[in-house]
Amino acid sequence: MTAGPGTDLTGPVHVVGTGLLGTSVALAARRAGLEVWLSDASPEHLRTASGLGAGTPVPEGGVAQLTVVAVPPAAIAGAVAEALRRGGVVTDVGSVKGQPLEQLAGLVPELLAAYVGSHPMAGSERSGPLAASAAIFDGRPWAVTPHASSAPEATALVEALARVCGAEPVRLSPHDHDRAVARVSHVPHLLAVLTAGRLAGASTDHLALSGQGVRDVTRVAASDPALWRQILGANRVAVAELLIDVQGDLGRLLEAVTGGDDDGVGEILARGVAGTEAIPGKHGGPVLPMASVYVAVPDHPGELARLFADVGEIGVNIEDLYIDHDPARPVGLVELVVRDDAAESLRTALAARSWTIHR
Amino acid sequence: MTAGPGTDLTGPVHVVGTGLLGTSVALAARRAGLEVWLSDASPEHLRTASGLGAGTPVPEGGVAQLTVVAVPPAAIAGAVAEALRRGGVVTDVGSVKGQPLEQLAGLVPELLAAYVGSHPMAGSERSGPLAASAAIFDGRPWAVTPHASSAPEATALVEALARVCGAEPVRLSPHDHDRAVARVSHVPHLLAVLTAGRLAGASTDHLALSGQGVRDVTRVAASDPALWRQILGANRVAVAELLIDVQGDLGRLLEAVTGGDDDGVGEILARGVAGTEAIPGKHGGPVLPMASVYVAVPDHPGELARLFADVGEIGVNIEDLYIDHDPARPVGLVELVVRDDAAESLRTALAARSWTIHR
Repeated sequence: MTAGPGTDLTGPVHVVGTGLLGTSVALAARRAGLEVWLSDASPEHLRTASGLGAGTPVPEGGVAQLTVVAVPPAAIAGAVAEALRRGGVVTDVGSVKGQPLEQLAGLVPELLAAYVGSHPMAGSERSGPLAASAAIFDGRPWAVTPHASSAPEATALVEALARVCGAEPVRLSPHDHDRAVARVSHVPHLLAVLTAGRLAGASTDHLALSGQGVRDVTRVAASDPALWRQILGANRVAVAELLIDVQGDLGRLLEAVTGGDDDGVGEILARGVAGTEAIPGKHGGPVLPMASVYVAVPDHPGELARLFADVGEIGVNIEDLYIDHDPARPVGLVELVVRDDAAESLRTALAARSWTIHR
Repeated sequence: MTAGPGTDLTGPVHVVGTGLLGTSVALAARRAGLEVWLSDASPEHLRTASGLGAGTPVPEGGVAQLTVVAVPPAAIAGAVAEALRRGGVVTDVGSVKGQPLEQLAGLVPELLAAYVGSHPMAGSERSGPLAASAAIFDGRPWAVTPHASSAPEATALVEALARVCGAEPVRLSPHDHDRAVARVSHVPHLLAVLTAGRLAGASTDHLALSGQGVRDVTRVAASDPALWRQILGANRVAVAELLIDVQGDLGRLLEAVTGGDDDGVGEILARGVAGTEAIPGKHGGPVLPMASVYVAVPDHPGELARLFADVGEIGVNIEDLYIDHDPARPVGLVELVVRDDAAESLRTALAARSWTIHR
């Protein structure tokens, strides 16, 4: 098959590490008709991934066109070096790109041309091959991070892999990538952790007042600390740089709050609003005018089903959906986000079917 | 009607301020068969609320059994004082309790016995009477905050109002309340604002890597800065106290990150996990064992409807629901949270109906 502009990805593809990401890449490559080889330190993971149709165990001495290393952060450089020695182009799918490159420059400096790091933005709180799916990359950004001595054909091949998986390749330098994820992922994660940390040990009476906001802010803080330790350890410099900025922001905020400087607080709040608006919209394009329709849904079996069946019959596409998933309420408030011009007719049609609509 | 244990709430109830909260209280009181009087500085809001069946304009010289003040934070003390002078028991539904009480002690010290503050935990990004609903309080905590000289009958009457609205009264001192909301609402809000603030002005290439995590963490930061200025201004002391704690946490985190102290980072991450677990579960009771079923849903009209119709036919109750609402993906991943013992059969039954299930 042809893999879009650039170099053809014809296979075989060798996936090293059959966790969630590795197995998902393998499934996507199989979906595209490519031959896929698998290897994993855990024979059980390997068997499971093969059983899911993700590929076959790598043959003795086999040299793949492209090897995809999908192992834990601390093991990436070693696994990439081993793959480079076997031959072919090599990428990895780790969350941090600078540190493994540095380590590789020490391990196999003469083979670096065939290595191009990458990072599909398709993480998950789940793990293991059973959580895998070829669909998890669809429409997602996939950072591709060539370094100074990467061969252009190697870069093109990794971009072809991203497209085969349904993702959008985004080319960045390894250094730029690490600064970007520090900002859009690692530091947000840490601020969620600090927020949640201040709830630990708080009195039950106080915690009883928790609403949806604090649940949203702290949700990611429940993720696996062992994995995050490795990620943060590998991206120390960029994370620390931003945390220092945040420290400055926090100092100014505290000064404004204690000093009764409401205008100062207001400026910080306004900057936050601007930040939420900076996050790109659907498919990276301009944000279409959307409107929300709020519907009260009793917590009985089948009620959500009935709502969505009605919406389906009315024929309006739901662009996005939030449930007020505060578990303390027997009646949920469902927010249906639809195209602006469809909202009013959806409200009317749902009300006519006896749903309680909140504007 | 009888309003549960304690003093009978028999009406009339006078609601001052017909925004989202005031109109919702009025609708809930009407639902319980009580006579409800309304007043608002905006004749348009008053007309809209009356039109929704929330009550009738307050009669000249009318004295209600209970007056509920639901006006913006800065106007609360004045409106409560005016209501106390008319007579009857008075409460307000503002987000901060200490400051208005202090102001009232200056305005009407001799009338304070009839005042008991309260705060339903049912905020919203929306506003105005059209967003109101009697359902928004169902199962929610409603803080009731008597002060040292509140009459016990006044406290009982306000707790009766909370129950009439379907909420669970939680009794706290005004001081305790303000410390609690600083922790579970105001400081989480501010950390979301600081996280979002660091996205404003970032390069498009970097922002392109934004995933679901940063969207969750920053969501509340999009709320109205003008309202939050007032809330934070009224709760300066408690907010500042906690922000100083956060400042200490951030300093320790930064030290651990820059010093390569992975164990130190790990401890902070673990404390975050403990914090997420401290948030109470359904109806404040113990958290039942739940399991998640992940389903891939194409972004076409009717697909969600088809999924929920199938779940409804299978007969499993959905306890909670998340959509991977990253708008960048044509295929959404829907997480259905169900009772642990129903998960496996739901997976099997959905797979049999050709849904792609991720474990």
